[in-house]
Amino acid sequence: MYRFFVNPFCINEANVAFTSAQCHKILHVLRLVSGNEVQVLDGHGYEYRVRLKEISSSKVIGVIIEKKQVFRYPEKNLYIYLSLLKRENFEWALQKCTEIGVQGFIPTVYSRTVLNIDSNSQKFQRWQRITTEASEQCHRANTPELHSPINFHEALDEAQSNTMNLIPWELETKTRIQDIITNTDKVPPPVKFGLFIGPEGGLTHDEIEMAKRSGLFPVTLGKNILRSETAAIVASTIVIQSG
Amino acid sequence: MYRFFVNPFCINEANVAFTSAQCHKILHVLRLVSGNEVQVLDGHGYEYRVRLKEISSSKVIGVIIEKKQVFRYPEKNLYIYLSLLKRENFEWALQKCTEIGVQGFIPTVYSRTVLNIDSNSQKFQRWQRITTEASEQCHRANTPELHSPINFHEALDEAQSNTMNLIPWELETKTRIQDIITNTDKVPPPVKFGLFIGPEGGLTHDEIEMAKRSGLFPVTLGKNILRSETAAIVASTIVIQSG
Repeated sequence: MYRFFVNPFCINEANVAFTSAQCHKILHVLRLVSGNEVQVLDGHGYEYRVRLKEISSSKVIGVIIEKKQVFRYPEKNLYIYLSLLKRENFEWALQKCTEIGVQGFIPTVYSRTVLNIDSNSQKFQRWQRITTEASEQCHRANTPELHSPINFHEALDEAQSNTMNLIPWELETKTRIQDIITNTDKVPPPVKFGLFIGPEGGLTHDEIEMAKRSGLFPVTLGKNILRSETAAIVASTIVIQSG
Repeated sequence: MYRFFVNPFCINEANVAFTSAQCHKILHVLRLVSGNEVQVLDGHGYEYRVRLKEISSSKVIGVIIEKKQVFRYPEKNLYIYLSLLKRENFEWALQKCTEIGVQGFIPTVYSRTVLNIDSNSQKFQRWQRITTEASEQCHRANTPELHSPINFHEALDEAQSNTMNLIPWELETKTRIQDIITNTDKVPPPVKFGLFIGPEGGLTHDEIEMAKRSGLFPVTLGKNILRSETAAIVASTIVIQSG
């Protein structure tokens, strides 16, 4: 059955209203007709079985047949403070880390980040579309949170509420994520991890010093020097698969 | 023969001096005695056959019997039988898995692989350029092997010489790579893992049955359904980072 994420504002007791992009997909790509059933997720833990009623290129309405709660937040939540990167690399990291199960992305500007915080809302909408499509494709029950871009020092402040914050750094050669993360077994769930992924040019010594003072743990991802987007997916995999 | 990595500074023309941790292991764990032989690696490409002479809990000295330069494969070698994929996805997987440390790629045609084995040598040369550039960029000491494309049943035959073969499968829900891979600790290194990554359309039941009969282990990568290239990177990370 086809799956769609629909904003809870577009779902009432009886009906679901789809977005115009979804109308297009339903009508022209999937060629569904009135009476067909689809699965709708509200991204906040509810799943609906929905029968399509009105179908046009501008409006599709579905009738809710069944509603059930399907999602509890995982015991291990991972938030990535991901440096803005060259477009395709950033988007690739968003897509892959959504598949892996990252709970939220905070686009972050580090000293050596070559892109500025961009107020252009088109970019943000594009990122949202990428994470939503990846969530649909990988059968996640929710979509990850996508925050507005912030600076590194704002990220350090924001991360203070996390259970543990990790910052992969090429000059750290000993401490591996899987070695220190086991200590969080003792913390009552939900555990919230922050992962700081710097830009292509790497972290500055000032940044690492600030990070250490803020209680972040510098970690190694192995001997090879990974690109930023590779580091994001490798470190996320280790956090989520450990223990 | 037991193997020890010893810093080159502790090796001269005639003798090897072991660290105190190694002294403890030699004396109390392995219970070796004067006259026993061990293998010493300096981590810079030289391997030594060494006969133990003085043994105490604070000092162990060995006499070098033989010294040779060895090609330095890591102790854990990973070969991926990667389905041919849409161009950019296949190339992403090659690049990222090279960074992570995969030792070899065997492009493989599964039942649902939509591409054919292509005799076009340009494609192969392009793949080689991608893995070489990724190796240089990530500071690897060697480049991964790149084999010619083969069919799934040829891959099963070829994989028989591996220590252990893994095949991520969405209908396997219990066995995780990190749970079964620890058993390979007992196998003398180098350990050679084969990882079978199927196409976008998934593996057929016939393929899984053939795989099981050939001794492959079906494994899960978690609840989410990963794209093929994501599965390649996630599974490689788990194999290489485990233990």
